[in-house]
Amino acid sequence: MTLNPDLTLLSRRALDACASLAAFTEVPGEITRTFLCAPSRDVTAFLSAWAHELNLSVTLDAAGNLRARRAGPTPDAPTLYLGSHVDTVPNAGAFDGVLGVTLAFAVAQALRGEALPFALELLAFSEEEGVRFGVPFIGSRALTGTLAPLLPLQDAAGVSVLDALRGYGLDPDALPDAQVRGAALGFLEFHIEQGPVLQAAGASVGVVSAIVGQDRVLLDFTGQAAHAGTTPMAHRRDALAAAARFAVAAEDLARATPGLVATVGVLTARPGAINVIPGQAHCTLDLRHEDDGARAQALNEVLSTAGRVAQERGVTLKVTHTMAQAAVPMDAGFREALRAAAAREGLQAPDLVSGAGHDAMILAGRMPAAMLFLRSPNALSHHPDETVHPEDVHAALRVGVGFVRALAGRTGEQP
Amino acid sequence: MTLNPDLTLLSRRALDACASLAAFTEVPGEITRTFLCAPSRDVTAFLSAWAHELNLSVTLDAAGNLRARRAGPTPDAPTLYLGSHVDTVPNAGAFDGVLGVTLAFAVAQALRGEALPFALELLAFSEEEGVRFGVPFIGSRALTGTLAPLLPLQDAAGVSVLDALRGYGLDPDALPDAQVRGAALGFLEFHIEQGPVLQAAGASVGVVSAIVGQDRVLLDFTGQAAHAGTTPMAHRRDALAAAARFAVAAEDLARATPGLVATVGVLTARPGAINVIPGQAHCTLDLRHEDDGARAQALNEVLSTAGRVAQERGVTLKVTHTMAQAAVPMDAGFREALRAAAAREGLQAPDLVSGAGHDAMILAGRMPAAMLFLRSPNALSHHPDETVHPEDVHAALRVGVGFVRALAGRTGEQP
Repeated sequence: MTLNPDLTLLSRRALDACASLAAFTEVPGEITRTFLCAPSRDVTAFLSAWAHELNLSVTLDAAGNLRARRAGPTPDAPTLYLGSHVDTVPNAGAFDGVLGVTLAFAVAQALRGEALPFALELLAFSEEEGVRFGVPFIGSRALTGTLAPLLPLQDAAGVSVLDALRGYGLDPDALPDAQVRGAALGFLEFHIEQGPVLQAAGASVGVVSAIVGQDRVLLDFTGQAAHAGTTPMAHRRDALAAAARFAVAAEDLARATPGLVATVGVLTARPGAINVIPGQAHCTLDLRHEDDGARAQALNEVLSTAGRVAQERGVTLKVTHTMAQAAVPMDAGFREALRAAAAREGLQAPDLVSGAGHDAMILAGRMPAAMLFLRSPNALSHHPDETVHPEDVHAALRVGVGFVRALAGRTGEQP
Repeated sequence: MTLNPDLTLLSRRALDACASLAAFTEVPGEITRTFLCAPSRDVTAFLSAWAHELNLSVTLDAAGNLRARRAGPTPDAPTLYLGSHVDTVPNAGAFDGVLGVTLAFAVAQALRGEALPFALELLAFSEEEGVRFGVPFIGSRALTGTLAPLLPLQDAAGVSVLDALRGYGLDPDALPDAQVRGAALGFLEFHIEQGPVLQAAGASVGVVSAIVGQDRVLLDFTGQAAHAGTTPMAHRRDALAAAARFAVAAEDLARATPGLVATVGVLTARPGAINVIPGQAHCTLDLRHEDDGARAQALNEVLSTAGRVAQERGVTLKVTHTMAQAAVPMDAGFREALRAAAAREGLQAPDLVSGAGHDAMILAGRMPAAMLFLRSPNALSHHPDETVHPEDVHAALRVGVGFVRALAGRTGEQP
């Protein structure tokens, strides 16, 4: 038992564990690990061994989440949850999700010899990326009792979530047991930023203020295909010309609106010949902001522009709103505790928003939730070259351990 | 012999012949007739019968062009050429090309009993659309001796133009005999406009001032794919945002420049996911103007904008110039003669440019060439619903007959 464990060594172990877990893949030569694939069992075995080493009790819940628990001082002591997900996108990097799990284990290992006034539960969520069933957060939804609507969804092979669980040897009837019961202190998730903000700020870690709200919209412009040579400009009903103006308007608005990001990720034109005016154009919009009102106003503005530029060209516009997800603010108390822990370690930990969804936004529906982001070198993520700086992993571990110790102190003071 | 043939009936025959020829197709249920396809023989037979009825001598030249000739008063009398093409695009209308051939026959039939001081040669070009070998004007190039570079080109099945000619029973060694020899008065081509200008002007026919020059350019923008949520606007290298601004600039410039048409017919983004900033965008530009200087200046301006909007976003731009074709002015004397013939018939015949290429631009390299456009209802062309108004066919025939008669008078005056 050591009260001053070597956090440098432990952060190294968290990194090494990411490398070990990267070997468990559906596709040799890359890292691809979707929900309940065969290599998920290797992940479970690897993490179970680590948990057993730490004398934690290990279960695989009915959604395939690995849960490693250190009991509290009393049966009704509250629980602090730490973790992230272990599934990946196709041809992924080694750290998205996984590092949040191994850091959670490292925190538990660092605090192994210390008394805590609460239980600690490490979570390795089975699914977050939405790859297999097109909808994310299957793992964390099981903890908040919001998984049921997703159970009938089918993957590309026509297998439902329900059948996938059964096929893996899990018991869907036991899903209610996966829900968080009793007092929850809260949830802390470590995650790589997947963006350039911390690198630009020269910071190892940052405290997430909110997970942005998001709209996803499909736009279908329909004009009239015509001959590119014989149709004067004034006679055209060019669907692509309208779509291009919409894309420009979206970028202009996002550049002019602090905190707004707008992306046209897809744009296609039909018939799609060099000498034919496009009669149809299809594009997408992804719009995100931490303030739901600002996002709604921005969406209204760009869709109004889309309608106007279409109408000016005799083009009709069909708008399909496929996602409207509210922003999720992180817990103010946990954020303050993370900032204080960072300050004690001599680290700046700037506030930043999360532009991507994370399990913390699901858990936030049930308990205080917070995220600590680690700098992403060159913002590379969802890519084999995704990496982290070892010193940033060390910094995150120091902040995490300090955060739990401070929480223990506070919780101890307020029995 | 009638000196005042019923041009209404003859214009009806020209239209009916289009309907008859539409039955000769490679694809049942639509009109599809590519270079040297089997139904081309039916076209030859149909037109030969009509030519024989008019006591014309018929040959199929080595490029598959049907040529029906009315001899001149002397062996060295010059020749006036009339005609268009009989191949089609896939799933075509019944009039593009074909109507120019049947109107040429109708003109010859109208003038059957009249002495002319020149020979008359009706041309049914075997290939103009460029469908089978990707390059157009195989038929008319044989008349100007510019076909040789195209002979090695292969179709989708790997058959060369040379082998296709042989396979059809033609003798490529006889191609030099297909060239225009001796004095040529010029070439007149009737063709549907394939655009909205005459309909907007309320005119049956129009006189083509020039066939526009054309640039075709491929633009490849390369930035950096990144996460749509985690990448603030200031950190993006969005290839599609640059391409969209280019498309807008092209439309803006063409709207502001009289006579210029600019078309972005293709625009694609990769990776092409709703939540990923596009790292690559590909688009095309088709730029046309009757004045080559104006076209060059416009091209320079839009490519300069493309370079600037790319650079502003940290995006690189590769420009591939795949076509730069000079404008071809139509013969001033023939144009004036067409206008005068229209005026005598009480028809307005506004000047207009041809935004598309036609056989007349090839023949213009060898002799005075002119085109008379017929109104295209709703500008529909290269489409099964392509049509013409019978009264416009009548008008075109009256103008054509008057044009030839006037030419005969002038030529007679200046022996």
